[in-house]
Amino acid sequence: MDVSDLLTSAGINIAICVVLLSLYSILRKQPGNACVYFTRRLVSEPVRGTGDISCFERFVPSTGWIAKAWQATDEEILAVGGVDAVAFMRLVVFSIRVFIIAAVICLFIVLPVNYYGQDMQHKEIHSESLEVFTIGNVKEDSKWLWVHCLALYLISCSACVLLYSEYKSITKMRLAHITGSPPNPSHFTVLVRGVLGPRIIHTKDAERMYRMLKSIDPRFLDRSLPYCIPGGAAHPFMVPNLRADSVSSTTSMDRLQSSQRRKECPAAFVFFRTRYAALVAAQVLQSSNPMLWVTELAPEPHDVYWSNLSIPYKQVWLRKITTLIASVVFMFLFLLPVTFVQGLTQLEHLDQLSRRVPFLKGILKQEFIHRVVTGYLPSVILMLFLYAVPPTMMLFSAMEGNISRSQRKRSACIKVLYFTIWNVFFVNVLSGSIIRQLTVFSSFKDAPTQLARAVPTQATFFTTYVLSSGWASLSCEIMQPFPLICNFFRKFILRTKVEPSSCALTFPHHTEIPRLLLFVHIGFTCSIMAPLILPFLLVFFFLAFLIYRNQILNVYVRKYESGGEFWPIVHNSAIFSLLLTQVIALGVFGIKRSPVASGFIIPLILLTLLFNEYCRQRFSPVFKRRPAQILIEMDQQDEQLGRKEEIHNQIRSAYFQNPIISHQVSINSNLPLSRNTSHHQGDEDNLHGLKSLKPFRYI
Amino acid sequence: MDVSDLLTSAGINIAICVVLLSLYSILRKQPGNACVYFTRRLVSEPVRGTGDISCFERFVPSTGWIAKAWQATDEEILAVGGVDAVAFMRLVVFSIRVFIIAAVICLFIVLPVNYYGQDMQHKEIHSESLEVFTIGNVKEDSKWLWVHCLALYLISCSACVLLYSEYKSITKMRLAHITGSPPNPSHFTVLVRGVLGPRIIHTKDAERMYRMLKSIDPRFLDRSLPYCIPGGAAHPFMVPNLRADSVSSTTSMDRLQSSQRRKECPAAFVFFRTRYAALVAAQVLQSSNPMLWVTELAPEPHDVYWSNLSIPYKQVWLRKITTLIASVVFMFLFLLPVTFVQGLTQLEHLDQLSRRVPFLKGILKQEFIHRVVTGYLPSVILMLFLYAVPPTMMLFSAMEGNISRSQRKRSACIKVLYFTIWNVFFVNVLSGSIIRQLTVFSSFKDAPTQLARAVPTQATFFTTYVLSSGWASLSCEIMQPFPLICNFFRKFILRTKVEPSSCALTFPHHTEIPRLLLFVHIGFTCSIMAPLILPFLLVFFFLAFLIYRNQILNVYVRKYESGGEFWPIVHNSAIFSLLLTQVIALGVFGIKRSPVASGFIIPLILLTLLFNEYCRQRFSPVFKRRPAQILIEMDQQDEQLGRKEEIHNQIRSAYFQNPIISHQVSINSNLPLSRNTSHHQGDEDNLHGLKSLKPFRYI
Repeated sequence: MDVSDLLTSAGINIAICVVLLSLYSILRKQPGNACVYFTRRLVSEPVRGTGDISCFERFVPSTGWIAKAWQATDEEILAVGGVDAVAFMRLVVFSIRVFIIAAVICLFIVLPVNYYGQDMQHKEIHSESLEVFTIGNVKEDSKWLWVHCLALYLISCSACVLLYSEYKSITKMRLAHITGSPPNPSHFTVLVRGVLGPRIIHTKDAERMYRMLKSIDPRFLDRSLPYCIPGGAAHPFMVPNLRADSVSSTTSMDRLQSSQRRKECPAAFVFFRTRYAALVAAQVLQSSNPMLWVTELAPEPHDVYWSNLSIPYKQVWLRKITTLIASVVFMFLFLLPVTFVQGLTQLEHLDQLSRRVPFLKGILKQEFIHRVVTGYLPSVILMLFLYAVPPTMMLFSAMEGNISRSQRKRSACIKVLYFTIWNVFFVNVLSGSIIRQLTVFSSFKDAPTQLARAVPTQATFFTTYVLSSGWASLSCEIMQPFPLICNFFRKFILRTKVEPSSCALTFPHHTEIPRLLLFVHIGFTCSIMAPLILPFLLVFFFLAFLIYRNQILNVYVRKYESGGEFWPIVHNSAIFSLLLTQVIALGVFGIKRSPVASGFIIPLILLTLLFNEYCRQRFSPVFKRRPAQILIEMDQQDEQLGRKEEIHNQIRSAYFQNPIISHQVSINSNLPLSRNTSHHQGDEDNLHGLKSLKPFRYI
Repeated sequence: MDVSDLLTSAGINIAICVVLLSLYSILRKQPGNACVYFTRRLVSEPVRGTGDISCFERFVPSTGWIAKAWQATDEEILAVGGVDAVAFMRLVVFSIRVFIIAAVICLFIVLPVNYYGQDMQHKEIHSESLEVFTIGNVKEDSKWLWVHCLALYLISCSACVLLYSEYKSITKMRLAHITGSPPNPSHFTVLVRGVLGPRIIHTKDAERMYRMLKSIDPRFLDRSLPYCIPGGAAHPFMVPNLRADSVSSTTSMDRLQSSQRRKECPAAFVFFRTRYAALVAAQVLQSSNPMLWVTELAPEPHDVYWSNLSIPYKQVWLRKITTLIASVVFMFLFLLPVTFVQGLTQLEHLDQLSRRVPFLKGILKQEFIHRVVTGYLPSVILMLFLYAVPPTMMLFSAMEGNISRSQRKRSACIKVLYFTIWNVFFVNVLSGSIIRQLTVFSSFKDAPTQLARAVPTQATFFTTYVLSSGWASLSCEIMQPFPLICNFFRKFILRTKVEPSSCALTFPHHTEIPRLLLFVHIGFTCSIMAPLILPFLLVFFFLAFLIYRNQILNVYVRKYESGGEFWPIVHNSAIFSLLLTQVIALGVFGIKRSPVASGFIIPLILLTLLFNEYCRQRFSPVFKRRPAQILIEMDQQDEQLGRKEEIHNQIRSAYFQNPIISHQVSINSNLPLSRNTSHHQGDEDNLHGLKSLKPFRYI
């Protein structure tokens, strides 16, 4: 592939992007598509005029949305999308910053060294092969390799400084989110799993649990919460049996007896008077059998993944292992289409193809078609296959037994990330059959050399991948083709009225974070090897900045929030990419016989590892546990402002799976439970309705 | 090496053992050696007659000690040595049980299959090569390999069942130890690290810390504890400056001002009114900066490793990484002597040696000497080198920043374990230079095959290793040569009076556990490959049973207790050995071309992994954290019995590094602090005396 091939590919992709974005700017102005492109606005501000756009304006492409996305402040994003959205945008900003630095260093310093690396007659620039711009063009034993080494040092240092400041600011943001948010029921609630069944609860264990929770501080446990235990004992436990089939009119006594057969009931929510009491109950090992009375802080009410609460805690570890194995198997079986795609980029395969299927011969001979097939088609096929991955991983994560939606998404995010980096990066780099790849990775010693040989030669593929898959996926993201078609289908064929809240989606972190991180990974590993990729990558990230801001402001709703809990994934992934870049550089300098440069890389690797360990010690605990200090301050504030009663009334009604049942319980327990008015999740739970209501019990 | 060589070696070792044990039985009857062989008894029962042993009896070997060690009950061991000692003896009992089962299976079923594995003329039994008894003698494609497969299944299953029951009973014992022990100051105390200095404490952070701790429950925090903060504010903090140079007569005000320069003071003990309050304070993340106000449950007063408390918490992670790297480097550099030892067992090296050093030729020609050199000398050299390892690892663990002696010992135990298994097992199996070994381990795919080739051929070495190193180390353990010589030196040359408490040693878990686990490892891996090792191993474990019981009853004192916290190490190590055995079997069946047997091993490996994961979920949390349930019950009992005040008086005086200072503080703070009468650690802290007293402060 030469420079003009690359420019053709870039041209095609720029044209496609411009067309799609223009199409978007027209489609979004149609009032009928408002529930696709302005879902969030419709949900949060239900009464909204479409404005007085004239008929002519409606069909002319405009750039107003770009200006709006650009001008939005971080505060706006925070108000609209929460900490998760801001943290996601920080990832984009981090990428832009680090690759601007990398591009300046590599294009102005490394690229000339690569280009003039050999004593050769250079062709005209447009017919120059792309290989000339890679480190592969630097001759062995060259004195100029210290430039690459220095560039890698500069890139690593700036990446670490940026990563540190991002981690710090997101930690601060997370803490501010915990402190600043209105009283959150999840702060006061503990989810207990592995609860022993009612038969035992009523006699000995109830006493024990009562004492256990009481001893935290009797004042903290919310005595005013509904309770009903047969026999007249008045413990602060609430054990109504919320079985779907017994909701109608049986009394709580009847229902309790009918369920006494079961020995272990899966889970229960316990409410506390203060945040600190809940935190303590959640973090202490309660029982001497660690599989019983397992406590953790409850997720936000809308974040609870109800159907998984019915999984007995004893199964969870087995499920985790099973899904892990399943994901790994899936990861390796996926190699088959990827191997095929890889074959297409190699010319000899194309020749074979045209020999076997003679009528293709004429078509493939044409210069343009040939360029499309080698430069564009493989990425498209790969991209189409990759679309099936996130739903699969989401399914695995649901089977794993995660009890909250954000946890499920985070788990899926990690799986998709591993999957993408393995199947897009490593498989393409090592380009071969499953067996050959396993052979390469079974000998760790040769891995740097193998990678060092492969990465510069595969840089062309990655450049086209950024152009096609990267840019196209962003256009696809803003176009929202699937909701658009669904909307069209419902409106003009089914002719049903669509509620905006029913088709509102939450931000798909599990697909977008791995995508961005993959490009960060490609960017780092290719930076000093093949710097020509960096401008295209920068365009990708600028586009991503505008498009994701637009989507957060207009499309995705915020139903629950994890408070930036996915940031450690981003941080670790970036560090991994940096380390891999350094290892590959080590291999390259080895191949180029530059022991001095190799020697300088080893301290860089050690320093990066140390930096990562420091960040792990300094920041990551805050993402796993809430610090007591700020919760105590919040509790005290509440007390000073006299908001306690109000908060407790709120908590009572927060954790109900279904408004009908919440109402039913409020009648049965003879307590003035306020009816749950919150809207429910848009996906599967709502579809199942009452049916999905597994036997579930509150203490 | 043939059978008669092995018998010669066994004969030599039995003779040495008998001689040493007889010598021991004589030495222990000499009144002058009482402080070597009855240290524990002398410390706990200071007035003790030596009995009326006649002069004749004193110089005749006897077996009385064996009977006493055998008859001691588990309750006695528990009373004398605590849970740690019982758990250690359980390791020996577990080994005996599992290897009795393995010996029965392997000697009666596997050994005949190995012996008649090839169609060959067998020689007389005593001149038969030992190789004939290993799996190497079974011909390829043999139909009898399912016997080995079945034997491995039986051994794995019985090992897992035994491991499960041991883990369960030790967990129970640990819980009973926590519940049953007299009120322990460490249950009420939290060690806070990364405390901000006095300047800040006095203004804002003191308030915050006060609120933080108060909010647990104001009743729980021990208000009656000494406090002194300038300015008249009466917080429940105690900030006397315990600098060695300012102890004499300055007032607390003066001392405080002089130390206001420092910004972070390393650590502080905080006392609570109940165990549960301390537990909560220890397990919750206190500050939003996870490097500050780090809390953990305090170790027992005698367990505190005072000199490490002065290490700022910020350094700890860096120290851990540094010592890890140092240990790994040490592990690999140690290969040099081991490689030399390995060379000696190979005959051609001996021939070379005798050619270079001609006068050795005559000696080496002699049959007996030759046997000694090949069968005995290598193990002795290896053993001598290995003696230097535990002190080195102990040093590393001290540098790591562990704040308690038990933690330091556990950390050293893990390091020594890795070290021994790598340097004794793997290096001998893979027998070669450093580079060759790294090559083997850099290709993971071939590792099972490599190991499968090497282990059966190295079985001879391991058999002699068990005979020489194993048996001799036990004799050495009971003889206590080093204290014996020291005692002799002090008594007859220095002529000083020796206090028994000053030379009292705690049980050296960090050397004895890795030793036993190494033999467990060798036993498992050799069991179905070379079953002839098992009888010798059983003798070793029987001997260990008697000797360690004797030592626990008579020699080692119990200064502190970890409550069996090292058991997870034992469990994990046993599981690792089982898994490695299975992987080697996989390789062997692969070499022998028995795909069916190989196929059956894979589910066994998976099941073993699942079993381990289950145990990790079910038991290990109890070894890391104390369950709230039992602590709460204990608190309630104390309240019912009215022991609270008494306990609090005890705690006040428990955590003082030095009796003089404890006295000083009690005067300065005008509180009736009881003088600390407990005796102090026998090792380095005591030697440093006041000098080692680093700046240290109590809140």
